[in-house]
Amino acid sequence: MQRAIDLNADLGESYGAWSMGDDEAMFEVVSSANVACGFHAGDPLTMLRSARLAVRHGVVLGAHPGYRDRAGFGRRALDVSVDELAAEILYQLGALDAIARTAGASVAYVKAHGALYHRLGADRSAADAVADALAGSAPGVVVLGPPGSALELAAAAAGIRYAREAFIDRGYLADGRLVPRGHPDALVHDPGRAADRALELVETGGIGAADGARVELAPDSLCLHGDTPGSVGIARAVRAALASAGHDVRPFA
Amino acid sequence: MQRAIDLNADLGESYGAWSMGDDEAMFEVVSSANVACGFHAGDPLTMLRSARLAVRHGVVLGAHPGYRDRAGFGRRALDVSVDELAAEILYQLGALDAIARTAGASVAYVKAHGALYHRLGADRSAADAVADALAGSAPGVVVLGPPGSALELAAAAAGIRYAREAFIDRGYLADGRLVPRGHPDALVHDPGRAADRALELVETGGIGAADGARVELAPDSLCLHGDTPGSVGIARAVRAALASAGHDVRPFA
Amino acid sequence: MQRAIDLNADLGESYGAWSMGDDEAMFEVVSSANVACGFHAGDPLTMLRSARLAVRHGVVLGAHPGYRDRAGFGRRALDVSVDELAAEILYQLGALDAIARTAGASVAYVKAHGALYHRLGADRSAADAVADALAGSAPGVVVLGPPGSALELAAAAAGIRYAREAFIDRGYLADGRLVPRGHPDALVHDPGRAADRALELVETGGIGAADGARVELAPDSLCLHGDTPGSVGIARAVRAALASAGHDVRPFA
Amino acid sequence: MQRAIDLNADLGESYGAWSMGDDEAMFEVVSSANVACGFHAGDPLTMLRSARLAVRHGVVLGAHPGYRDRAGFGRRALDVSVDELAAEILYQLGALDAIARTAGASVAYVKAHGALYHRLGADRSAADAVADALAGSAPGVVVLGPPGSALELAAAAAGIRYAREAFIDRGYLADGRLVPRGHPDALVHDPGRAADRALELVETGGIGAADGARVELAPDSLCLHGDTPGSVGIARAVRAALASAGHDVRPFA
Repeated sequence: MQRAIDLNADLGESYGAWSMGDDEAMFEVVSSANVACGFHAGDPLTMLRSARLAVRHGVVLGAHPGYRDRAGFGRRALDVSVDELAAEILYQLGALDAIARTAGASVAYVKAHGALYHRLGADRSAADAVADALAGSAPGVVVLGPPGSALELAAAAAGIRYAREAFIDRGYLADGRLVPRGHPDALVHDPGRAADRALELVETGGIGAADGARVELAPDSLCLHGDTPGSVGIARAVRAALASAGHDVRPFA
Repeated sequence: MQRAIDLNADLGESYGAWSMGDDEAMFEVVSSANVACGFHAGDPLTMLRSARLAVRHGVVLGAHPGYRDRAGFGRRALDVSVDELAAEILYQLGALDAIARTAGASVAYVKAHGALYHRLGADRSAADAVADALAGSAPGVVVLGPPGSALELAAAAAGIRYAREAFIDRGYLADGRLVPRGHPDALVHDPGRAADRALELVETGGIGAADGARVELAPDSLCLHGDTPGSVGIARAVRAALASAGHDVRPFA
Repeated sequence: MQRAIDLNADLGESYGAWSMGDDEAMFEVVSSANVACGFHAGDPLTMLRSARLAVRHGVVLGAHPGYRDRAGFGRRALDVSVDELAAEILYQLGALDAIARTAGASVAYVKAHGALYHRLGADRSAADAVADALAGSAPGVVVLGPPGSALELAAAAAGIRYAREAFIDRGYLADGRLVPRGHPDALVHDPGRAADRALELVETGGIGAADGARVELAPDSLCLHGDTPGSVGIARAVRAALASAGHDVRPFA
Repeated sequence: MQRAIDLNADLGESYGAWSMGDDEAMFEVVSSANVACGFHAGDPLTMLRSARLAVRHGVVLGAHPGYRDRAGFGRRALDVSVDELAAEILYQLGALDAIARTAGASVAYVKAHGALYHRLGADRSAADAVADALAGSAPGVVVLGPPGSALELAAAAAGIRYAREAFIDRGYLADGRLVPRGHPDALVHDPGRAADRALELVETGGIGAADGARVELAPDSLCLHGDTPGSVGIARAVRAALASAGHDVRPFA
């Protein structure tokens, strides 16, 4: 049975004179681009380039807000109050949207970055503040995040649409959490294996967990990475495998 | 004859733990608030507070973008390329707009800050880049700036609305430029004299220049300052004088 | 019996166009100045002004490093690795020292700021990394911090001198921790009461705890605040009370 | 006749998650490393890594301060006051020195970066402020810069040592200025030609200018680049050519 699935990746993570990742290649593979908004990575000109690439490749644009911690690339826990967090996410979303509009695009969804992604998945009061702020400022914007998270509950409570993503290149535990980095099953490096996992996720809605059982994820989108060695190769293998199996790569938003 | 005039001021210039100006008092006086957007001053939470004050006091909200130079408060010339400048202005405008929407407001106009204000008044290619970007991203937004500037010409060429402002507390030369700081006629400190100048500007459209002649400004808005000693007193005196003379303080946008 | 005690305060916390506290007044009261080094607050020119004030008033200069989080004024927990933390503290110390030398001063001690102060007081591995880095880079510099902390143990292990401080305007619990903010006994606002506490700390080495018992602190320095309403009044009252009682206010370093 | 010459390059220009250049390779070629100090590039941990590489490879460490403009990589003119500039340079120098000391190194010289380099070469009052600040804070530190510049005059007036550098991969005009970028003679891309130029500079003290005449530079150091495609190849070719000709690559400081 043929199905449709979205492929998303974190893009636009260059900053000033420093470049990161192979955005040209990745925009050819994904259907949704999570574009950094200048807090943990990205800057106005990089955002404009990303918006133009999105339009050229028919990719849907998402805001990818992070903690205001460029030195740590948004990967470090930072104890921001929930009110400030909500305002920071609107700030980043609005900034990208205004830039995107000159390129003929607009922000269709939001996916948080790094330590903020993890916090919103687990901290209900932070998730509520963010979901309420989005409902008040940009009610048509979809939230993309992990299945069964605090953020999914918060989005439902705030009346905004939520989309679930699964990671192709990260191992899962039976309870839905990711295998911690450092563990041998944490990361998938082989393009063929990544492609098989993508097919399994699309065709069954779940994946075999590292601790034996199966985890149901029902993903609307599969997350690819664009910033590690080999990541473009994995991304292309996944896209090709989906095409061979007759599945449609299509934006969720 | 009774006339209508706008009063604008730069507000929301606090940053994190540091406060600046008496925004509570100034929001009671102005009809338009130029709110800093996080580059030279301001931050997401301060912007949210400003948006709420604007709604509470019926004040129209303007974006007040500056150079990405917080250390210099946007007052120092910085040789940013015109493409980057245009993207930076959209970034700041969009950021404020998204935050304002949760408060029930939106950005109605843009007025540049400090060294950027001066550059856009004189550098036509920078002004064109900015006006074109605004026309492409937010065509309903009005640009507020000095009369007869490069920016006014650029706005006309891009097909976006432009509003002219005059400074109440700065002396003018006959050619329309401001008296340089340091000169005895550069600044008006006396509330009564500021109020008289406001009335002259509203009722005649011009002002006596420091070098003798008269300068025609035809302002849509009068600019007040909110961050210097005595500035609140001047602002209140101006507002009271306009009310006594039967003039209406009304947003230009 | 007459004793000698140091009075320290966090100073030099202005940033660019934003000022904080009344440094001119506080430099007349303290014997040691904890000067912000540009990460959470302060900037090169503010640091130079502080160094000059220190020389003019015979005040000993200390580096006051914080997390690289200007937006949060260094008050928010930030999960920096211990190696990066150690390098960041040397960075800030060295920056202040080089500036101080043009003013004829140098950095005599280090006291961490805000969330970093609390972390180094409790997190032994962070404290060890910092103490070892100081021992390797600036072995003559004294570390100022809370009595009985992880940092005191780390300083001893690294072979560098440690000085203990007590807070005049914060309530203590019997176990030596501060009464949490929000509790009625958390803060001392009355100058007379602050002065009495200073005398008790100097003359007995301890203070009555909010939960009844007495806590021994054996302070080398008493910490004053310079950035809250009334703080200058408290500082002057403490200094006057110490003078009246014949105690000598003298730098610990 | 065998001579000694220094080879310098801008290194340590990574920032947080973003890397730049091939420092491992370049530290094997140069005798002096201009290490970014966290304003336009670099950060405490990157500085520590650079200091350790310098010690491992017997390379002399120089501070490479730039404008406080990370977004523009210090390449954009920024109208900083000369007093602030002087304090900013001490700040960066001291920060690197304190970090270097834990690695067993220290800062031996200063070379400004980008737009600041050009300003100090031409703006005598800025150059004087910087030279005076260095003389007051770190009088043993050598200043490295262009021959015959405002900075060379300022260093002489302040009584600090100055070293002259020549660019191997940039064309010169007869008046000593660089051929502007964009001109066909602006850049040397061929390793063999770069090596020939290095030999000519070392053996004759000058170089053929693009507009025909010869320019005398009397360099103490030759500047290599480490951040462009092919730059490591050029650097190695230069080093090899100097070795073949029997010239000694030796730090100037």
